[in-house]
Parts: sequence; C-alpha cells; structure tokens
Amino acid sequence: MKLVPLGDRVVLKQTEKEETTKSGIILAAKAQEKPVTAEVIAVGPGGMVDGKEVTMQVKVGDQVIYSKYAGNEVKLDEEEYVIVKQSDILAIVE
Amino acid sequence: MKLVPLGDRVVLKQTEKEETTKSGIILAAKAQEKPVTAEVIAVGPGGMVDGKEVTMQVKVGDQVIYSKYAGNEVKLDEEEYVIVKQSDILAIVE
Amino acid sequence: MKLVPLGDRVVLKQTEKEETTKSGIILAAKAQEKPVTAEVIAVGPGGMVDGKEVTMQVKVGDQVIYSKYAGNEVKLDEEEYVIVKQSDILAIVE
Amino acid sequence: MKLVPLGDRVVLKQTEKEETTKSGIILAAKAQEKPVTAEVIAVGPGGMVDGKEVTMQVKVGDQVIYSKYAGNEVKLDEEEYVIVKQSDILAIVE
Amino acid sequence: MKLVPLGDRVVLKQTEKEETTKSGIILAAKAQEKPVTAEVIAVGPGGMVDGKEVTMQVKVGDQVIYSKYAGNEVKLDEEEYVIVKQSDILAIVE
Amino acid sequence: MKLVPLGDRVVLKQTEKEETTKSGIILAAKAQEKPVTAEVIAVGPGGMVDGKEVTMQVKVGDQVIYSKYAGNEVKLDEEEYVIVKQSDILAIVE
Amino acid sequence: MKLVPLGDRVVLKQTEKEETTKSGIILAAKAQEKPVTAEVIAVGPGGMVDGKEVTMQVKVGDQVIYSKYAGNEVKLDEEEYVIVKQSDILAIVE
Repeated sequence: MKLVPLGDRVVLKQTEKEETTKSGIILAAKAQEKPVTAEVIAVGPGGMVDGKEVTMQVKVGDQVIYSKYAGNEVKLDEEEYVIVKQSDILAIVE
Repeated sequence: MKLVPLGDRVVLKQTEKEETTKSGIILAAKAQEKPVTAEVIAVGPGGMVDGKEVTMQVKVGDQVIYSKYAGNEVKLDEEEYVIVKQSDILAIVE
Repeated sequence: MKLVPLGDRVVLKQTEKEETTKSGIILAAKAQEKPVTAEVIAVGPGGMVDGKEVTMQVKVGDQVIYSKYAGNEVKLDEEEYVIVKQSDILAIVE
Repeated sequence: MKLVPLGDRVVLKQTEKEETTKSGIILAAKAQEKPVTAEVIAVGPGGMVDGKEVTMQVKVGDQVIYSKYAGNEVKLDEEEYVIVKQSDILAIVE
Repeated sequence: MKLVPLGDRVVLKQTEKEETTKSGIILAAKAQEKPVTAEVIAVGPGGMVDGKEVTMQVKVGDQVIYSKYAGNEVKLDEEEYVIVKQSDILAIVE
Repeated sequence: MKLVPLGDRVVLKQTEKEETTKSGIILAAKAQEKPVTAEVIAVGPGGMVDGKEVTMQVKVGDQVIYSKYAGNEVKLDEEEYVIVKQSDILAIVE
Repeated sequence: MKLVPLGDRVVLKQTEKEETTKSGIILAAKAQEKPVTAEVIAVGPGGMVDGKEVTMQVKVGDQVIYSKYAGNEVKLDEEEYVIVKQSDILAIVE
C-alpha cells in the first residue's frame, strides 16, 4: 500500500533522531519546539489548488524542514507519515 | 435512497477497524487522534465552487485518507456516512 | 404569504421525524448532533453573490441534507423554516 | 430628516409585533431568538462595494426577513431604524 | 493645522448632543450604544485601496451616521476627530 | 546606519510631547489611548505588495497620524523608530 | 549542509548581541520585545506564492530587521537560523 497525495500535498517521513538537552536529558525529536527534518516520500500533482496554480518544487527523496504545527499524521502499515501542503515546507536541506 | 453530493463534496464511508493500543486496550478507529481511511461512495460534479473552478480527482471506490476534523456525519437508512469537501481529502491509498 | 429568498439562499422545511436512541429514549430530530434532512421550499435566483457567480443546483421539492450549524430559523404563519446558503447544502437525497 | 444609505446598505424599520409564548408570557419581537420582519425604508445605490459589483434586489416598501445579528440600530427623530447590508437580508416576504 | 486623510479615509467631527434617558439621567451621546451622527470634515482621495478601486461618496459638510465601533479618535489643536474608512459610514442624513 | 523599508512600509519617528491630564498628571504621549503624530523618515518603494499594486502617498518629512496598534518598534543607534505599512497611516497633518 | 528556502522564504541568521538594561541587567537580544537584526543567509526563488507573484528584494549578506513574532527557528549543524517570509522583513539596514 502507498499514499498518493492530492493537489499540493506532500507525504513526508520524519527523520527520527535523539538529541541531548543541556541538562543531559535525552529528548526525542518530536518533543522539541522546533521544525523537524523529514524525507519526501510522495508528491501531489500540484495544479489548480483552492483557485491558485501551484507548481510542485520538492521531489521524492528531498530532505526538507517543515513547520511543526502543520500537517496531518497518518499511520499506514505500521509506518507513520505526515501529510503537509507544500507551502508548509520551509526549506530543502542539501 | 442515495446521497448526491453538491459542488466539490464527496460522500465517504469510513472503513471501520479495531486497533489494539500498546497497553492492550482495543480502540475503535473513531476514538483515535489520527486521520482515518474511508471509501469514496459518491462524488460531486465539481465545477465553480465558491468562485473557484474545482476538478474532481477522486472517484467512487477510491480508498482515501481525510482530515479527521473535516466533514459532516450523515446517517441514511441506518448507514453512517461522512460528507467532506475534496480539499479535505489528504491522499488516496493504493 | 411566502418567502422569496435573495441571492444564493434556499428556504428549507425540516423533515421532522422522531428517532429512538439505543437506550430507548425518543429524540426529536432537532436534538441530534447530525445534519438533518429538509425539503427545498424556495430557491433564490443565484447570480453574482459576494462577487462570485453562483448557479443554483437544487430545485423546489428536492430532499436535501444540510450542515446543522448553518442557516437562520424563520417562522412565518406558524410554520418554521430554515434559510441557508446553497453552499451549506451537503447533498441531495434521491 | 431622512437616511440615505451608502453602497449596498438598506435602511429597515422593524415591524413590531407581540407574540405569546407557550407558557403565556408576552414577548416583544426583539427579545426572540429569530430573524425578524422589517419594511425597507431606503435602499443604497449598490455599485462597487468592497471591490465587488452589487446589484440591489430589494426596493422601498418590501417586507423582508433579515439576520438578527446583522446591522446597526439607528435612532432618528424618535424613530428607530436598522441599517443592514443587502447580503444580510435573507428573503422577501410576499 | 488640518488633517488630510489618505486613501478611503474620512475625517469626522462628532455632533455632540445630550440625551435624557427614561429614568431622567442625562447621557452624553458617546455613552450610548448607538451609531452617532457626525459631520464630514475632510475626505480622502479614494482610488486604489487595499487592491480595490474606491470612489468617495461623501463630501465635506455631509451629516453622516457611522458604525460606533469603527474609526480612530484623533485630537488636534484641542479638537477631537474620528477618522473612519468610508465603508464604516452607514448613511448620510439629509 | 539607516533603515530602508521594503514594499509598502514606512519608517516613522514619533513626535514626543508631554501632555497634562485634567487631574494634573503628566503623561508621555506613548501612554495615551490615541493615535500619535510622527514624522516620516523613510518610505518603501511600494509596487506589488501581497498581490496588490500599492502607490506610496506619503513622503519623507510628512507629519502623519497613524493607528497606535499598528507597526513594529525598532531601535537603531539609540534612536527609536516605528515601521508601519502605509495603510496604517490615517492622515497627513498639514 | 545548507538550507535552500522555498517560494518567498528567506533564511536569516540572527545577529546576537547583548544589551544592558537601565537597571544593569544584561539581556540577550532574544529576550527583548523588539524586532531584531539578522543577516540574510539564503533567499528563496520567489515567483508565484499562494497565487501571488512575489519578487525577492533582499539578497544574501543584507542586514535586515524582521518582525519578531514571525518565522520558524531551525537548528542545523549546531547553528540556529530563522526562516521567514520576505513580507515579514520590515527593512534593510544600510
């Protein structure tokens, strides 16, 4: 099974990594108040979305940073994904 | 009796499935904080909706994931449906 | 006396029906947390509404389901009506 | 003195009428949770309003029902009026 | 010194008048929950405002009624003015 | 160092003046609930801003009144400025 | 690794500087209630963003002042950045 996003949506898989706080506590990336890095898994076709022409600028395999308050978490075949609109992707990490 | 959605609306029938939490409790899909899978039952004609041209991209029989806060629950002939706008559908599951 | 709706508005007459809950209590349709069925009584002319061209898609006599949080209740000659915008009508029931 | 409304505004004079509740209490129309009937006293010229072309569809003397949360109450020469935008008028009563 | 309003703004000078309540208390017009009458002191040039073409419809000397929650109070040379957008003016009083 | 505003932004320098309340307390202009006067220090180029064509109507040296809730305070070389959008400027004082 | 912003986004690196308050306490720039200065690190391509044509007006190396409530903080290779939309940049400091 795979996810085929509609419109300007992008399926992301969060790149999990642990990080140590200054006081020594280990926090999972999810618990932090920062945008997180993710890999692009699938990209919608773009086109006319909400009355506006959208050209997709990310591609499968890109590492991206997205706004952490954006998107919907989806679970498929025991894997967790996040589906965001392309406009919620802040930057590509090269 | 059948539902004929207007504009960019789509009639969905939620795919019910139970799921076991890590602590062993069985939760119905509805109680979870995640988008849920549903089958497309009927698709509106699209066209000019709220001043914007909308082309319908899903078709009857598609399995889709939609934003759980979207849509209106409708009960017809003892069956429960959810009517969403196509823009609330995140992805097709293939 | 009759109601002649303006713009994209539609006059509905709710189809009252009682329904029994699982615990045996009878609830009037109004008390339920669901969209309700109504009959279309009068249809506005459509045209340019709030700067957008609207074509009316429902007609007098249609049974429709509308979003329960939408519309204004109106009482005329001891009859109660609901006036909604066409965009608050989710689907026609055939 | 008279009121000459600007743009898409309409001056209404509420049709006062008392109504008896089921428990026998008499309520003035204003105290009820329903849209109220009013007579059209003056109609703005319409035209370009907030960047959108508006054609006036009501005329002086029309009995109309308007959304009770809309409009501004105005007192002139001891008479009370309500000034609404035409889009807050739900229907003409014929 | 004089105020030259920009865009679709209009400088008003409130017409102060006292009014007696039914219980005999005298209220200044400002304390009332009603739109108040004002005289137009200066009118902006109109033109393209927030991406929309605005034609000014009031002129200096007009008595107008405006929405009491609109506008900014300004004090210049010990005189108090209110600066509103033309769209906050409900009607001209003739 | 100088500030070069982008788009439809305008750099203002507030005209500080003290004012005595009726009870004799001296209030700095900042503490008052009124729009304040300021001098225009720099003017952005205007042009296409947020999809709308904006023509700049104020010029360096103008005394203006602006909405006190608008703008961002900026400190540069020990001087305080306010950067507002031109649409937050209510009027020019001549 | 580097950040390649999408659309009208700009990657900034805050110019850290300490500042002494009147009472002698040293505050890091972040704790202050003012827009802060930052250097432009990377600039998105602009183009059609949310249905509006955007031309980028800042370039790498510019010192800018941006609205402190705007943007997303991003950490990459132990460096902290802020990603803002160009419209959140108030002015260039020359």
